[in-house]
Amino acid sequence: MKQFFAPRSLAVIGASRHPNKVGHVILKNLITAGFKGKLYPINPEAHHILNLPCYPSVLAIKENIETAIIATPASTTPAILEECGQKGITHIIMVTAGFSEIGNHELEKTIHSILKKYHMRMIGPNCLGTLDAYSGCDNLFLPHSRLTRPKPGVISFICQSGAVGSATLDLLSKEEMRFAKFVSYGNALDVDESDLLHFLGNDPKTKIICLYIEGVKDGKKLMKTAQHITKKKPVIAIKGGITEAGARATLSHTASLAGTAAIYKAAFKQSNVIFAETLEDLFNYAKILEKCPKPKGPRVQIITNGGGFGILATDSLSTYGLQLKEPSEKTKEWLRKRVSPEAAIHNPIDLTGSVTTEQYKHALKAVLEEKNVDMVLLIVLLQTPLITPEIIDIIKQAKNHRSKKPIIVISTGGNFTEMYTRQIEELGVPCYAYPNNAARAIKALYDYYHNRK
Amino acid sequence: MKQFFAPRSLAVIGASRHPNKVGHVILKNLITAGFKGKLYPINPEAHHILNLPCYPSVLAIKENIETAIIATPASTTPAILEECGQKGITHIIMVTAGFSEIGNHELEKTIHSILKKYHMRMIGPNCLGTLDAYSGCDNLFLPHSRLTRPKPGVISFICQSGAVGSATLDLLSKEEMRFAKFVSYGNALDVDESDLLHFLGNDPKTKIICLYIEGVKDGKKLMKTAQHITKKKPVIAIKGGITEAGARATLSHTASLAGTAAIYKAAFKQSNVIFAETLEDLFNYAKILEKCPKPKGPRVQIITNGGGFGILATDSLSTYGLQLKEPSEKTKEWLRKRVSPEAAIHNPIDLTGSVTTEQYKHALKAVLEEKNVDMVLLIVLLQTPLITPEIIDIIKQAKNHRSKKPIIVISTGGNFTEMYTRQIEELGVPCYAYPNNAARAIKALYDYYHNRK
Repeated sequence: MKQFFAPRSLAVIGASRHPNKVGHVILKNLITAGFKGKLYPINPEAHHILNLPCYPSVLAIKENIETAIIATPASTTPAILEECGQKGITHIIMVTAGFSEIGNHELEKTIHSILKKYHMRMIGPNCLGTLDAYSGCDNLFLPHSRLTRPKPGVISFICQSGAVGSATLDLLSKEEMRFAKFVSYGNALDVDESDLLHFLGNDPKTKIICLYIEGVKDGKKLMKTAQHITKKKPVIAIKGGITEAGARATLSHTASLAGTAAIYKAAFKQSNVIFAETLEDLFNYAKILEKCPKPKGPRVQIITNGGGFGILATDSLSTYGLQLKEPSEKTKEWLRKRVSPEAAIHNPIDLTGSVTTEQYKHALKAVLEEKNVDMVLLIVLLQTPLITPEIIDIIKQAKNHRSKKPIIVISTGGNFTEMYTRQIEELGVPCYAYPNNAARAIKALYDYYHNRK
Repeated sequence: MKQFFAPRSLAVIGASRHPNKVGHVILKNLITAGFKGKLYPINPEAHHILNLPCYPSVLAIKENIETAIIATPASTTPAILEECGQKGITHIIMVTAGFSEIGNHELEKTIHSILKKYHMRMIGPNCLGTLDAYSGCDNLFLPHSRLTRPKPGVISFICQSGAVGSATLDLLSKEEMRFAKFVSYGNALDVDESDLLHFLGNDPKTKIICLYIEGVKDGKKLMKTAQHITKKKPVIAIKGGITEAGARATLSHTASLAGTAAIYKAAFKQSNVIFAETLEDLFNYAKILEKCPKPKGPRVQIITNGGGFGILATDSLSTYGLQLKEPSEKTKEWLRKRVSPEAAIHNPIDLTGSVTTEQYKHALKAVLEEKNVDMVLLIVLLQTPLITPEIIDIIKQAKNHRSKKPIIVISTGGNFTEMYTRQIEELGVPCYAYPNNAARAIKALYDYYHNRK
């Protein structure tokens, strides 16, 4: 499967001289992304495209080719696949649409038999292909000017739908989320979600796997694979088509039989796959699971400088079944001498709007050493004037504290706040703008490690 | 009540020369915001602060004073209030904390009796005060460098907690949401949420009211006021302290008795106040209610260029009880001639990633003229290369279409997308990044007008 993400040689079949054509955009993106392998544009009518020599067919190339991207009209694909087979190409990414998703089942069958005949593996058809942030293999046919590519990271994203994948990659790259590999697999004629999950499960660059699926042809295979992978790394999944109306829509999108929400939820739970209700949850969960260690239990201590945010976070944490214990008398006494008299030392610890950076330091030390606390939800509203830039160092020290308790930050605000939250996330501490999103993420973190036992 | 938001003359009691003190920040912010009334700093130890002449007490001022902000320690407030009463000041904003929220009930009673004696109205204590985007009355004691102020708009925000209010104002100002008035009212010793709701209900600048409450002392008063106001304009509310743990936390924050979620939900429903589960919902709802007209019914037609987003939106809309009808045969036939053969013309109408701006125009025309459609959920993923800047004009025409159907946009992406969504929102069309958030907002829009009947 490595050849799908970092091939040593790659043919782009359907490479075009016209800037708006898919085959042109793919070739251009591979060059822009600094693809490390050898590139071969295929087009019988061109000599050169983007300064690369062009070939009429893969059969005209003397060197060995590992992988081919096919971006030609559906009707041409059987003949092209035959040539790929004859050339000894082993891996195909077929972005072309117009198969079973529009009722063209015969053509899909024809393609399938050619794949079998030559023992080729294929991603697609009707997909966006792959993106590898390390190898520069970027065959998404969306221009870099419109879609920001992520920096290299440890989250990988398997996405049946190309649009869901690419639009969220774009949004999250802007929010500085980093990715290892991305793959949109469309109709899943050959390579399916289970194959990709298995591969990424063993990929050393991937620490977290996000999954968007519309339909699953072999549910048992997926569950068995997931059960195995989730022992090693978290898998978070969102399911499109969980309602009757949604399921009807999947048929014309990726020709998938959707199945009900209840079946998927139960199967995911059994395999310890975290079920995300929304796309926003999917990536909020990925962030906490990327950055936080295993919590020892469900007890969360809130520290805040905004009473209302402490209350909203308390409500959300309670709703999701997490526990808020009162600090011990010893902790209270120790802390009372070090914070302002208006501070409320319960759970939440409300340091009030007059909080200083030093008081945050004391409060963090107290709760990291408190036995009743498994996780710390640190609310830092940076608008209050006495918080100094040293808050970053204090959060860094807390992150490195020997207790290794997960620390999650809520910080809500505009540009000034964002300047800080970027730095805090660089330390490996996840930040959220809204209390409810943080609480849902904490629940996902706890569930993953608790269910893994 | 107007004197709380746009007083002609304002005394800042506790004005300080030290840049980090609350009394300094308030005075500086009023000057920065271009406050249009006359300003009087009060400090017995200073001659001038920020180039304004300073007075030892309000009694030393010859001119009439409408409103006073008090930012001195709690113990000094009774004597100061007495002076305000003698001076004939009618409106007080007391930001000072240290009253019933930390068990200091006696002091709060003393203050209450002085207010009664002189017939003064007061916001606070333990609050952040008011912000009026039109008058420049900005007494939030948080520096402009840390907290971005909103541009003038039509949403007003009544917020018991100062931190919740100010941090979200900051976040939303960055996202270009605009506000008319903001008020944080703290312990609500005199002026409470009902008084503020009544005032903003009659404020011509305010078209939407957002409300964050922790506790309500007079529930019947609030319900009666809300019932009246929601006939004229939408009120959206979030409640802090809806769980047992959350309710305990409200006691030490604003000394509020919180009450259960069920009671609040029922009371809100009866008064047609939209209940927001989360802060994110609160402002997502405000945005749709600000920008969209009344929908005639619950039938939503989705148009998309990303199949997966269409499916996720379908799932969410169905979950919230909205209806997705199949387009009529006539519409299908008309549209089939004008879009690409791969397009799926159902609900969603999936124009696919190869969509052109022109095809969006046809699809919008078709659904705006379709009788089975009450609202349009328009998904435009701008990463696909054939969408041109004319998409903005097409959305503008759709917004102005004689059918006056609400149009809601989902567009997910980074900087390129944001450049467009800002323009679309300027047209008065709300944009969301995540399908589920858009669907929840559509549900709120429908509920408000449906329940108002």
